[in-house]
Order: sequence, then C-alpha cells, then structure tokens
Amino acid sequence: MADYKITDLNKVKRGSNRATYDITTINSIIDAGFIAHVSYIYQGKAISIPMAYVRLENKIYIHGSLKNRMLLAILEAKEASLTIMHLDGLVLARSGFHHSVNYRSATIFGAVTSIDDDDQKTTILKAIVNQMVPDRWDSLRPMTHKERNATLVLEVSMDTASAKIRDVGVVDEKVDEDLPIWAGVVPVKQVALPPISDDKLSDETKIPVHVLEYYEKNKL
Amino acid sequence: MADYKITDLNKVKRGSNRATYDITTINSIIDAGFIAHVSYIYQGKAISIPMAYVRLENKIYIHGSLKNRMLLAILEAKEASLTIMHLDGLVLARSGFHHSVNYRSATIFGAVTSIDDDDQKTTILKAIVNQMVPDRWDSLRPMTHKERNATLVLEVSMDTASAKIRDVGVVDEKVDEDLPIWAGVVPVKQVALPPISDDKLSDETKIPVHVLEYYEKNKL
Repeated sequence: MADYKITDLNKVKRGSNRATYDITTINSIIDAGFIAHVSYIYQGKAISIPMAYVRLENKIYIHGSLKNRMLLAILEAKEASLTIMHLDGLVLARSGFHHSVNYRSATIFGAVTSIDDDDQKTTILKAIVNQMVPDRWDSLRPMTHKERNATLVLEVSMDTASAKIRDVGVVDEKVDEDLPIWAGVVPVKQVALPPISDDKLSDETKIPVHVLEYYEKNKL
Repeated sequence: MADYKITDLNKVKRGSNRATYDITTINSIIDAGFIAHVSYIYQGKAISIPMAYVRLENKIYIHGSLKNRMLLAILEAKEASLTIMHLDGLVLARSGFHHSVNYRSATIFGAVTSIDDDDQKTTILKAIVNQMVPDRWDSLRPMTHKERNATLVLEVSMDTASAKIRDVGVVDEKVDEDLPIWAGVVPVKQVALPPISDDKLSDETKIPVHVLEYYEKNKL
C-alpha cells in the first residue's frame, strides 16, 4: 500500500527518523490495540478521552452513550484525531538525556459522521466487541433494538495519519559508551492474566474457546 | 486530602458512579504511570501526544525538545490537559452492550509555564527519569549544560482534575444472568520482561540493583 500524504498537520517534526506514513504499518499499529485516546475541544480546551475502537477498511469507529460529551463535541466539530500508543520498552541510557522508550504510536485525523443505519451499526458494534476479544460477539445474547438505539456510533475517516516507531536499543553519545554505567532496554508488555468467571454463572457454563484462546495468545 | 471542586469542565457526566475528585486517589493514578496523553490545539484541531511526566506536589512536569510542536502550543495557550489511563481488565458480559473495561484514568487541567531556572530544571529532569525507573538518575553520567539548555521543561499546575475507576466484575441485566453464556473478567497488566544489556557494555558492568528491583517489582 501507499503512504499518507505528508502535510503540515501530520508531519512528524521531532524524531523524524522514527516517523512513518506507510498505510500498512499504521494499520498494523491501530489493529494491535482497542483503546485510543480521542481528542476533542470543549470550552476552547483540548481534552483526550480513552475509548474503545475498531478499524474497518479505512475508517475508525467509536461508540458510546447518546449524551457522551466527547462524542457530541467531535460530531459537532465534524472532525477528530485519535492517538493509539503501545509501550514496548524502557530505554535506559548512560545519560538521562538519552533515556527513551520503545513504542509504536499512530495519530489519525479525519472527518466525523454519525452512523444511523441499523444494520451498519450492528456490524460496527460487533466489530468493536470482537476487536477487544476475537470471536466474542457470536456467543452473546443478541443486541436489542433499545440497546442499539441508545448507542451513538461515530465514523472517523482516516484522511491523514502518521506513526512513530522506536524499536532499537540504547543510543548514547559515542564518548559515553565506555563509561562503567549499565545501559540497556527493559521490555514491557501488556499481558492477560487467567480469566475470572462471573460468580453468577452456573457450573455448566465453562470458559469458551474464544476466551481461552485470547488468554493463551496474550499471556506472558 | 480534599476533593477537586467540581466544575462544568471536570465534571464526569457519563458513568458518574465511577467518578472521583479525591486528590489522593487522583495522585495515586498519576503516580502509577509515567506516560500521559497531553492534549493541545493545532490549526484549530485537538491532538494528543503521549509524553513522559512526573508529578511533584500539585504540579505535573513534562519535557522535550525546544522545537516540540505540542510543548510550544501549550506554552503559547498557557494551559493544557493531560490524561493518564491504566487498563486493568476486559469485562466480558453476556451482552455486547455491557462489555466494558476495568481501568483507572485521570484527566488534569492546568496552567502551563516554562521552567527556566537551572537547578529547578535539573530537579525535574531527575524526577522524570526516576518516575520511569526509581533511583536511576544517580547512576548516570551527569547532565551537561548543553543538554539542559536543549531541553524545554514545562509545568502544568493541577488546577482541577477528575478520575474514573472501574474495578468491579460483570454487570449484566438481571434477566440475562441465567443465560448459558460465559461472562467474566480477563485481567490485563503491563509487565516488565528481563532487562537486555546494551551490547557495548564491558563484562564488568553488571545490571544494577535499581534495574533488578524494577524488574522484580514489575514482572508478572
């Protein structure tokens, strides 16, 4: 795939050697998570709120209550940006100045519209649940009309985006490399712990395959 | 300690049963991390950028290059908000509607000023490094004047703030509780993996106690 066009808005100015505009790379950063920080303006102030999301093709979808302040603000503004970040490691250099982190982050800018078609809303809400835990949706009690009507679903077009990736070791000043100071990387990772069944479950209701698979895939 | 005053800006409107304005609780959420999403306005658009931070008393400090677009934007705006979120678990209900996550998040609003005093800058930069890995700073090659002068340090006063915490199990509709659908929580946690020494280190330079302690405290 191609790159996003570089504009003044999405151009990475600091650490540009770590920047990428490659659509495939940016999509892989987006798809590796399910919580984005969505930014909006309220009373002239910029605020960001963590929200569940899913990407379908070249659009991102978020949802929430019909009265959600952030959702209503970006719907009125007709645009939003989202930032997704995965922390991969602490980079401990020989000087404070070169301390850093390894990470993958993406920022997306796009137009915001409301999804009002019932079937499309259902498709998106299913995808949001399955983005959290693959294959979960089909095991659930079907969504009611009341629930769907109580949910605001917004589409954010991915008009432009950029990503930054740092995935290398310590980069110290040449003159510091011989100092007797330990330097290195401490990798960090978000892992799943064993599932805890709801105490209202009957003894016959076992942990399903999709949850066991999620745990196996995400445990340390 | 007391609560932050509730205003239109920091009032949690959705899920207000999970909201808190308690200063001690909010400080504990802040102190449990070291990366915040800092929000700013650029060309009329709200954007958020993940940044390292530290809290000292009732101020938060961030730093970066003198040319960092976000830092310069909030310095010019004289105000900023920061959001810190820790994801603690996936809450898998019997219906898609009641899927949720367990988390601790805090959003802080405050005035932004530049820290220009050399000693104060040093104190803050030391605290930012130690917020990442406790006791790291004193083992490092001392900061040079050039490095300090190349670093912009900003203070964000904590004028108001709010937090949301969800730390309970599945909350399903009463009528759904007897359905033969598995529900429960999958706890998630950010953990440290074993430190990887820089390959330029001499054999005599062993992993120091502060790094081993960090790993022991943060491993699974």
